[in-house]
Amino acid sequence: MTVSAFAALAAKQALVAYDYEPAPLSRVEVEIDISHCGICHSDLHLIDNDWSTSSYPLVPGHEIVGTIMQAGPDASHAVGARVGVGWQRSACFQCDLCKAGHENLCLRQQATCVGHMGGFARRIRIDGRFVFSLPPSLDAAAAAPLLCGGATVFAPLRRWGVKAGMQVGVIGIGGLGHLALRFLRAMGCETTAFTSSPDKREEAIRLGADHAASSTHAGELRGNAGRFDFLLCTVPARLDWIGYLQALKPNGVLCLVGAPPGLMQFPAAQLLTGQRAICGSDIGSPGAIREMLAFAAEHGIGAQIERAPMSDVNAAVQRVRDNKARYRMVLEN
Amino acid sequence: MTVSAFAALAAKQALVAYDYEPAPLSRVEVEIDISHCGICHSDLHLIDNDWSTSSYPLVPGHEIVGTIMQAGPDASHAVGARVGVGWQRSACFQCDLCKAGHENLCLRQQATCVGHMGGFARRIRIDGRFVFSLPPSLDAAAAAPLLCGGATVFAPLRRWGVKAGMQVGVIGIGGLGHLALRFLRAMGCETTAFTSSPDKREEAIRLGADHAASSTHAGELRGNAGRFDFLLCTVPARLDWIGYLQALKPNGVLCLVGAPPGLMQFPAAQLLTGQRAICGSDIGSPGAIREMLAFAAEHGIGAQIERAPMSDVNAAVQRVRDNKARYRMVLEN
Repeated sequence: MTVSAFAALAAKQALVAYDYEPAPLSRVEVEIDISHCGICHSDLHLIDNDWSTSSYPLVPGHEIVGTIMQAGPDASHAVGARVGVGWQRSACFQCDLCKAGHENLCLRQQATCVGHMGGFARRIRIDGRFVFSLPPSLDAAAAAPLLCGGATVFAPLRRWGVKAGMQVGVIGIGGLGHLALRFLRAMGCETTAFTSSPDKREEAIRLGADHAASSTHAGELRGNAGRFDFLLCTVPARLDWIGYLQALKPNGVLCLVGAPPGLMQFPAAQLLTGQRAICGSDIGSPGAIREMLAFAAEHGIGAQIERAPMSDVNAAVQRVRDNKARYRMVLEN
Repeated sequence: MTVSAFAALAAKQALVAYDYEPAPLSRVEVEIDISHCGICHSDLHLIDNDWSTSSYPLVPGHEIVGTIMQAGPDASHAVGARVGVGWQRSACFQCDLCKAGHENLCLRQQATCVGHMGGFARRIRIDGRFVFSLPPSLDAAAAAPLLCGGATVFAPLRRWGVKAGMQVGVIGIGGLGHLALRFLRAMGCETTAFTSSPDKREEAIRLGADHAASSTHAGELRGNAGRFDFLLCTVPARLDWIGYLQALKPNGVLCLVGAPPGLMQFPAAQLLTGQRAICGSDIGSPGAIREMLAFAAEHGIGAQIERAPMSDVNAAVQRVRDNKARYRMVLEN
């Protein structure tokens, strides 16, 4: 029952083939035969121990698609079902947040590949409550990045009431941003892609953006003053926060799904005038992931991916490190 | 038809008796015989031209209660009705914000006593759409501060979904904060009053707070980590924003109704972890004011006031400048 995987044995190291013995399958767990696993920037941060939460050997991977091989009696998944797994692997299910459907905010949550063996592997055993049925129309490889990246951008659009006719800006057009553009187009929003890469501006239009602009050129940002109902920032970069706040309409919201380094700074008057808000959003709850997968299936949305065999994991990881992947790298078994 | 009023003739000057001729009553306007007018800190800022928006002679006053003396044919108010007026005196009624009931965010809005003669006077002529019927059970003097201060704290509680059972903190126990405590108690929330004045801690409990704490003592704030669903900051002071963000529960919201000087600074991770938000709120829409007045009448809520004759306006203003009013000074004709 040994699981073949790829692991970092220490921080910032290349991954090596690594076999481990999984714990016995619990009543609520399933075992998944992994067909695909996306590479998220978070995996790189974990490999490098950037967040001081990593333990080694570390098997990254939390955008997992595969087929159920075994299911505990309380897991409510059938053997043979095609499923996905994202960032989160467990929660307490007892606290007020869990009971309210905010399991992603549970203080006792655990992540799929933090202190547990992740998806750069042949198989994984995991709590069935964090395993999601994949609608049949979704391509397995293109769906893998939906499980983390897709959920991360979809959940705040729903939570903050983004709807048809709204003006929405997406800052950063990468693994997350390109999925946001696709969701927003399907929702009927008019979208502007903000990117620091001149070559991504045309690509963003092809991906479904109505407009493209520089994320860093002050003049372009000022030209968008008062324009947006919602701004979704997918890049952990220090940006002109005052300029982006000014780009919001009254009642507009600037939502961060990545944490930029250093301090955010702005005058409070930027929030008061026009009742603007800044918020963060942290992955998606199981409910949000289910809704996102149904929405993706309904609208034919998947990630734009590059594929690599699992055995080429180090080259694939390097391509993500170099920001060359357009727009998500997916490993295949 | 001359109106007797009190005006500042230049910035930071004492008010003097001042008569003016009002413009002819328009079809949508009413003329109000003013019985009471609250003194808000904004009036002091206008007298002093702190916001560089003042023109002189300046008649302050925007927490007005009185009786309709005349009504234009399209004003939909009856002569003799008891009414109130708050910060806002007009809007365009054409823009998307006005049409959506957010007239308070209209870019062409005008304020009652900015560029117009306000409520430190015997009478005022003003657009009937910004004149609100006062429920009969409300005391005129205690209701006057509801029109601006009450609306300013009530509107964000509704907008952000504050409801029974929530833990809510009110930062700053003055004209606005004490009304927030009363509204929140009536809504069934458990409230904590944060104040920098040790003598106000007991008073806050008498005003309806369940708990009182120092707004500036780092230890007390840290002791409240993860406690609040909603924090309403009513003071334009530089505070420990990181500490207050940490005092929020996951999904918690810190809402500012006054603009502190300087820059707000905090790590973005404070927003991402637990999906917290910071926002501003700007007075209340006509709809919010109507709802607030009905709620105040239902729950017997008015301001705790000190009364002064209109002729003693300068002494009353000084008492507000000295932060001695408990909790709102109201001028009486």
